[in-house]
Amino acid sequence: MEFSHDQRTLDLIDRVEAFVHERAILAERVLDEQLAATPGEWSFRPVVGELRDAARAEGLWNLFLPGERGAGLTNVQYAPLAERTGWSPRLAPVAFNCAAPDTGNMEVLADFGTPDQQAEWLEPLLAGDIRSSFCMTEPDVASSDATNIATRIRRDGDSYVITGRKWWSTGAMNPDAAIFIVMGQTDPDAERHRQQSMILVPRDTPGVRIIRPLTVFGYDDRDHGGHAEIAFDDVRVPAANLIAGEGEGFAIAQARLGPGRIHHCMRAIGMAERALSLVQERANARVAFGRPLAEQGVVREWVAESRIQVESLRLLVLKTAWLMDTVGNRRAMTEIQAIKIAVPRAVQQILDRAIQLFGAAGVSGDQPLAEMFAGARSLRLADGPDEVHLNALGRAELKAPRR
Amino acid sequence: MEFSHDQRTLDLIDRVEAFVHERAILAERVLDEQLAATPGEWSFRPVVGELRDAARAEGLWNLFLPGERGAGLTNVQYAPLAERTGWSPRLAPVAFNCAAPDTGNMEVLADFGTPDQQAEWLEPLLAGDIRSSFCMTEPDVASSDATNIATRIRRDGDSYVITGRKWWSTGAMNPDAAIFIVMGQTDPDAERHRQQSMILVPRDTPGVRIIRPLTVFGYDDRDHGGHAEIAFDDVRVPAANLIAGEGEGFAIAQARLGPGRIHHCMRAIGMAERALSLVQERANARVAFGRPLAEQGVVREWVAESRIQVESLRLLVLKTAWLMDTVGNRRAMTEIQAIKIAVPRAVQQILDRAIQLFGAAGVSGDQPLAEMFAGARSLRLADGPDEVHLNALGRAELKAPRR
Amino acid sequence: MEFSHDQRTLDLIDRVEAFVHERAILAERVLDEQLAATPGEWSFRPVVGELRDAARAEGLWNLFLPGERGAGLTNVQYAPLAERTGWSPRLAPVAFNCAAPDTGNMEVLADFGTPDQQAEWLEPLLAGDIRSSFCMTEPDVASSDATNIATRIRRDGDSYVITGRKWWSTGAMNPDAAIFIVMGQTDPDAERHRQQSMILVPRDTPGVRIIRPLTVFGYDDRDHGGHAEIAFDDVRVPAANLIAGEGEGFAIAQARLGPGRIHHCMRAIGMAERALSLVQERANARVAFGRPLAEQGVVREWVAESRIQVESLRLLVLKTAWLMDTVGNRRAMTEIQAIKIAVPRAVQQILDRAIQLFGAAGVSGDQPLAEMFAGARSLRLADGPDEVHLNALGRAELKAPRR
Amino acid sequence: MEFSHDQRTLDLIDRVEAFVHERAILAERVLDEQLAATPGEWSFRPVVGELRDAARAEGLWNLFLPGERGAGLTNVQYAPLAERTGWSPRLAPVAFNCAAPDTGNMEVLADFGTPDQQAEWLEPLLAGDIRSSFCMTEPDVASSDATNIATRIRRDGDSYVITGRKWWSTGAMNPDAAIFIVMGQTDPDAERHRQQSMILVPRDTPGVRIIRPLTVFGYDDRDHGGHAEIAFDDVRVPAANLIAGEGEGFAIAQARLGPGRIHHCMRAIGMAERALSLVQERANARVAFGRPLAEQGVVREWVAESRIQVESLRLLVLKTAWLMDTVGNRRAMTEIQAIKIAVPRAVQQILDRAIQLFGAAGVSGDQPLAEMFAGARSLRLADGPDEVHLNALGRAELKAPRR
Repeated sequence: MEFSHDQRTLDLIDRVEAFVHERAILAERVLDEQLAATPGEWSFRPVVGELRDAARAEGLWNLFLPGERGAGLTNVQYAPLAERTGWSPRLAPVAFNCAAPDTGNMEVLADFGTPDQQAEWLEPLLAGDIRSSFCMTEPDVASSDATNIATRIRRDGDSYVITGRKWWSTGAMNPDAAIFIVMGQTDPDAERHRQQSMILVPRDTPGVRIIRPLTVFGYDDRDHGGHAEIAFDDVRVPAANLIAGEGEGFAIAQARLGPGRIHHCMRAIGMAERALSLVQERANARVAFGRPLAEQGVVREWVAESRIQVESLRLLVLKTAWLMDTVGNRRAMTEIQAIKIAVPRAVQQILDRAIQLFGAAGVSGDQPLAEMFAGARSLRLADGPDEVHLNALGRAELKAPRR
Repeated sequence: MEFSHDQRTLDLIDRVEAFVHERAILAERVLDEQLAATPGEWSFRPVVGELRDAARAEGLWNLFLPGERGAGLTNVQYAPLAERTGWSPRLAPVAFNCAAPDTGNMEVLADFGTPDQQAEWLEPLLAGDIRSSFCMTEPDVASSDATNIATRIRRDGDSYVITGRKWWSTGAMNPDAAIFIVMGQTDPDAERHRQQSMILVPRDTPGVRIIRPLTVFGYDDRDHGGHAEIAFDDVRVPAANLIAGEGEGFAIAQARLGPGRIHHCMRAIGMAERALSLVQERANARVAFGRPLAEQGVVREWVAESRIQVESLRLLVLKTAWLMDTVGNRRAMTEIQAIKIAVPRAVQQILDRAIQLFGAAGVSGDQPLAEMFAGARSLRLADGPDEVHLNALGRAELKAPRR
Repeated sequence: MEFSHDQRTLDLIDRVEAFVHERAILAERVLDEQLAATPGEWSFRPVVGELRDAARAEGLWNLFLPGERGAGLTNVQYAPLAERTGWSPRLAPVAFNCAAPDTGNMEVLADFGTPDQQAEWLEPLLAGDIRSSFCMTEPDVASSDATNIATRIRRDGDSYVITGRKWWSTGAMNPDAAIFIVMGQTDPDAERHRQQSMILVPRDTPGVRIIRPLTVFGYDDRDHGGHAEIAFDDVRVPAANLIAGEGEGFAIAQARLGPGRIHHCMRAIGMAERALSLVQERANARVAFGRPLAEQGVVREWVAESRIQVESLRLLVLKTAWLMDTVGNRRAMTEIQAIKIAVPRAVQQILDRAIQLFGAAGVSGDQPLAEMFAGARSLRLADGPDEVHLNALGRAELKAPRR
Repeated sequence: MEFSHDQRTLDLIDRVEAFVHERAILAERVLDEQLAATPGEWSFRPVVGELRDAARAEGLWNLFLPGERGAGLTNVQYAPLAERTGWSPRLAPVAFNCAAPDTGNMEVLADFGTPDQQAEWLEPLLAGDIRSSFCMTEPDVASSDATNIATRIRRDGDSYVITGRKWWSTGAMNPDAAIFIVMGQTDPDAERHRQQSMILVPRDTPGVRIIRPLTVFGYDDRDHGGHAEIAFDDVRVPAANLIAGEGEGFAIAQARLGPGRIHHCMRAIGMAERALSLVQERANARVAFGRPLAEQGVVREWVAESRIQVESLRLLVLKTAWLMDTVGNRRAMTEIQAIKIAVPRAVQQILDRAIQLFGAAGVSGDQPLAEMFAGARSLRLADGPDEVHLNALGRAELKAPRR
């Protein structure tokens, strides 16, 4: 066993960390001001573009993507970098072109796209010229059960015609999100996991209608393109826009999930570390009832519990990444489910404690805690509520072969 | 022992419940629309005025206030009414002129105000002609320790001059909040709990400056006047504006707390009941993995746990109210602390489960859950973080005489 | 609403409390010594008889039993007395002839027994001349599902013949337990809740075989007759021994449950109070790292949390008792389930904290904590694991009519 | 990063696992019978000797000890073996001569003993000819604060004279425990961590008096020598019996702790795995309310939560072991504290769930769960209650340098 990172990873950690601390975190207030000055604007604010230019200039770009198109890192190598980007969740991932949902969409195109699809959509995404959205969740059904998905993708000659309604299409409020990957049903009579397909729908296709932005707690997440409800009314795209083949939707979704979970979980751990850093500063500076908060039992207890959670869960995520690298996503299923369940709720708890320590400032916009809380809270629902995964993990465990 | 309400209370429960269900809840969408249509407006939107007119016409007005000026109810009689108003926290309390911080401010004026102060400020508050704010918390100190309060109230001839900075002055963004009750230090050399005083500061007094609105988890709480940061720069008011006398600030604050806790806690329980009602509806209607959510173990477990929490905590609040009515606030101290700690966090947990059941809709503005969550979360910080009270309760318990 | 006890109850509380503190608790070490000196003896040790004589002489006898045969108290009147007996769970309940399973068995005989059955078994139980056991749980099936019960009670002429195996027959190791109430199946073809019956089986009936004592976390509970595994091999008793009628077993069991839950829960709360009293003493006396434990944050926090749990849950049990008194057990079902779930686990947690405070002494026999812990832990399994009740409560709540 | 074990470790895991499953677990009932047949006997029962002979014959002996005297494994190599011994905590560790407190005592002698001390005590311990005890905890003081230790070790010519009282001297009831390592104060005026020393006291030294055995919950732990209270009344031993030097007691205790924590924690994880294995079997076999327990939501949830806890905490322990191997115990302090806190309580919770699933059988002696629970519960107190470590970890974290 070996718990240290290799040298290349250590070097990248240093460089990413420096960028996040010296640029991204400092730019957060600028972003707030630019957002406040431009209500209703959904495209990137200028400071985002500046950060992206700087990161690209430093070679900190597309770090998430394995293979020659990206930085060529394994999951276990990219994981600690994703953690560092979580310190500034609104600015660091996007600065490195490593923000969801673009990351997952680029992976899908890289792994399952045709050369034409790659040329048309993957290249500009990699170059940072456009953004994208992933249209999976639907308002009217429990989408954690993929067979519930009601959007129809119907073949009609050389085209597919898409009809349905999606919501929580993250990033789609940003007019630069030029391409949507849409999940829908091509064959309701196929077996359970062969009914769905994914298809590329350019934003400007007739019949695509952005209905409204959604909010998460009170946040519109305007800095990263918000979350849209979108109607697809008889939207016609060329048959060549289908990804991989009819019935492949579920399999692509599964493949997309693994790395995404690593990214989400490591960023969440980074948020927890940021919170602990803020807590440390506050607890040493703030005096109540005659003593710094840092000397009060409950504060120490919170910090210790948080440290224990972060250390054990980080290891679990890293092991999951290592399993994905060595035995593949399928055999890492239990671990992938485990981190999906365990990390966001622990981070939510850590953030909740940090908010409590900060008092009213903690729930306000003066600290990043409440907004990170909203993000962590949402992760417990992302790609299915935790309970679905808990049930599946338990069922599998109860059937697992034992000595 | 007798666990049922008296007949007058039962009748009022019916009437309040009918109003909340038949008017307030239905008006929530109208409020959303009116707010969306008038960005930047902090005064009451029209629907609020209509509800207030209706409630007053029905005699459901100032229910919170004991004595002849109000409905004359005891704490244990008003408590179940407060619970019902919690079902629609943005509209029901204000409709009945029973919304914080006006309630606490009216109590202060009724109990400690001079006849002149009452004529000038209490009467219009009772009539619903103006609103008010309570300026206690400060940005730079841990205000849960009252001796930390840094705002100065200095006597100068026939005037007092107030200098300091307050934040989380709820309601103060509303231009109709005509009067502020400000807590500040009159004598730094007095003994610990005799240093502070409270004073009436009309909104339009020179030197009062509204700096900015604060947000709670992204919400600006514009429907009830938001939360302001306010500078008091050499603000001069007549000496007659002092409430009760120099050094009485801490005692008034304590007196104000007791009923306020009952109101907050019962409203929070009402929010929990609303959430459980929404959960019931959703769980019976929504199907995942072939069965309604209502048939799934984890959902039943959540609902059962929530029901147990609500039933036991409601009893604790009611007993606290009964103690306040029978032996007085001072001897109900342990219970008052207990409900402050136990209720908001339980309600937060119940709301968290409800959000989880609703999936992404739960964190959005389509359901009232996320906004109620932000409210319950904030209660854990209101008048001091829970931990301060937990510590005090534990210390007292460890000293309590025992057989 | 009225949260105080009536005068008769207050007087009884005083007398019971005095007896428990001045006699029962002091006798605990004597009991330990008598038990240590007589390994393998299952009958009452002398100190128990002495306490029973003293309690009877003081008129503190059969307090649990409503009606003329007992003290004639309602559930809400007896509840606080049961709490006081929980301070010394090994000696106080038995001293007052208020110990399970005799209490439930006496209730069954009083409510459902024929005059002959009452003369033969109820009278000597009330007089304290014999003891009894209740034979319900079976080793081979999940007995929380009553329809699983496999013991057969077969009519054969003027007799019934009983065949089956029971365990956790509390008290049955005591040779003075002269009568067993046995639950078994009389008609497997009847509808679900009419299949079972209860029958009286004298201990010395041929075919009754005590197989072995069981232990609870290492404790044999020898002071109150232990827990037996018993075989019933073609045990023949007169048909007149059947209680109430064929098919009435489930209904009798349900009727027996309500008061039993009140007793168990209030005694458990008494154990928690005893623990808190011990904690208080220890925390003030014990110094670590230069300060008494009572001044350390985590200790205060534990004590405060425990106090909050005790106060809120006691109210829930009292309200349940009041509901049983006023609207009947059936309409108090939700509350009866709620206290069954909520109280033992909270008391387990309170005891766990107390053990932690006492360090190694806490898990030893030098303090009553570990043995009380084992008792509270077992309550979470008694008459069905909590989860069965949680599920039922959740299901009912999800179907409950709402406004 | 590399999460797999090396080949030697994998081979040893296989062999240890085979021994535990094919011999130790099967011998548990034999041990129960031999214990029941010989009340009051504290020495090893015959089955233990047979297992030890078998393990030694297979070369599975002294696996815990690094260097040439033992198996020469690193901490990270031994850790997974310790886990496997936790499946049968009463028989497997002792079978491999890897049971506490002998392991820690052998480490102390190997690391700090003189050649004479090693020849006299270490060799027979390694050979399995004698056993030992560690006398640290005292009944009258909070021993988690080492400066509280009141036992005196006084120099008198060529001797030391020991006076004091110890308890929880594990293994000391076994007459084969020939040597005691006693911690006591040699110099009350030295600085805080230089006041204590450790000294070797042969069991048969005049003045050593075994007072009584202690119980853990109701268990006397007779199978491994119980836990003794011991008086040392002017016990005189040669000065050569002192270990390492005066004032070295605290440092030796610290050195002894690190590996001990790894062993305890990994064994606890092994207990959790055994429990999960039993749960799996039971949940698939047991039917309630028409379905196997394995299909019921709450059971799956428990199993999944337990799996997540085990996976993440095992990684934390392994990383701690790796840190001890690579950077040393001192720099692994945070992690050593973290596992001490996190593992036993998680295992206690996993065992609690398992007990709940087994119903009344779970608390009885028919399953190993209740006794393992008592063991895990005690670990939360061993070498200081968790809260002491939590506080220290929090304090250190709040002072840790950050970017």
